[in-house]
Amino acid sequence: MGAVTEADRAPKQDRSRATRQRLLEAAVACLAERGWSGSTVTVVAERAGVSRGAAQHHFPTREDLFTAAVEYVAERRSAALRGLFPEGTRATDRAAVVAALVDLYTGSLFRAALHLWVAASHEPQLGPRVAELEARVGRETHRIAVELLAVDESRPGTRETVQGLLDMARGLGLANLLTDDAARRTRVVRQWAHVLTEALG
Amino acid sequence: MGAVTEADRAPKQDRSRATRQRLLEAAVACLAERGWSGSTVTVVAERAGVSRGAAQHHFPTREDLFTAAVEYVAERRSAALRGLFPEGTRATDRAAVVAALVDLYTGSLFRAALHLWVAASHEPQLGPRVAELEARVGRETHRIAVELLAVDESRPGTRETVQGLLDMARGLGLANLLTDDAARRTRVVRQWAHVLTEALG
Repeated sequence: MGAVTEADRAPKQDRSRATRQRLLEAAVACLAERGWSGSTVTVVAERAGVSRGAAQHHFPTREDLFTAAVEYVAERRSAALRGLFPEGTRATDRAAVVAALVDLYTGSLFRAALHLWVAASHEPQLGPRVAELEARVGRETHRIAVELLAVDESRPGTRETVQGLLDMARGLGLANLLTDDAARRTRVVRQWAHVLTEALG
Repeated sequence: MGAVTEADRAPKQDRSRATRQRLLEAAVACLAERGWSGSTVTVVAERAGVSRGAAQHHFPTREDLFTAAVEYVAERRSAALRGLFPEGTRATDRAAVVAALVDLYTGSLFRAALHLWVAASHEPQLGPRVAELEARVGRETHRIAVELLAVDESRPGTRETVQGLLDMARGLGLANLLTDDAARRTRVVRQWAHVLTEALG
């Protein structure tokens, strides 16, 4: 065996990172489409074009893979959301910010997270991990919402108004699960952006 | 075999109705606790103290049993909610009405409906039936909300304001799935009742 040089090592790390990302993205897509009961490491490895052994090297258990996947995609979506409004927002952009926040809950990430949540409610080995993951993602989303809406949380009621908005976004995501709810959602979001602008001052 | 008299028939109908109700209540409890994959007609029949044959007489398929169960319990909860505010409400009671509406989404009925929803998103034989059921229950809940909040839907924005409130209630139900979210929920509901009162005039 020849000596491993710096130049060899870097591409290997890149390949490993790329494999990991492919697995995480395939895991979210699989969970969104097939639900928890249809989502196994084998199915995800196949979808990602990775051997089962390589998948297990990255994620020793099924729980590791799927919780990591939801967290990874949530982080990427948060970063993308921040990127949409790079300089924070003025009050005039609030309707766009509300719409963008609601959008976090209507794609395959929300669908995947929902399947994980529901499975966690009666799978003891998932429960605590998913509860912790949700708390972390929830705090981060709240932080982004406060930042993008440019509101002052020290003002009484502001914190709860923003929390209620994110609860509404989650409920809108749920309403979109079985049918395309986009038309109704657009009207609700437009009206609530108006109500919230009044409420947030 | 003797002739069946009116007097014989009435108690028999009562017994049959009581059996049906026991099955429906057991089905919701089972779905809330074990999810769709753990909910079979056999498990429900046992829980209700009814023979499997009798259960299948009432509900030929698993889908029949569980969609009927969610609809039945939703109707009972709607009736109970109407009963809480028998004469409609004045604006001063709005906080109580908002809290009562949100309560619809935090018990075992919501949990059961959520499991059914999520299963329906990838079980072809459930999908259309559950979508139809949800639309029916959703319309009825909206009607009750408009009635109890004593608002005029012909006023622009009112309809969407009420819809957004029910979306928020659904999101709060979801937030309560893995952890007891009651303390945060109380604060959000208090603040949103205030925001709604301003918005609804």
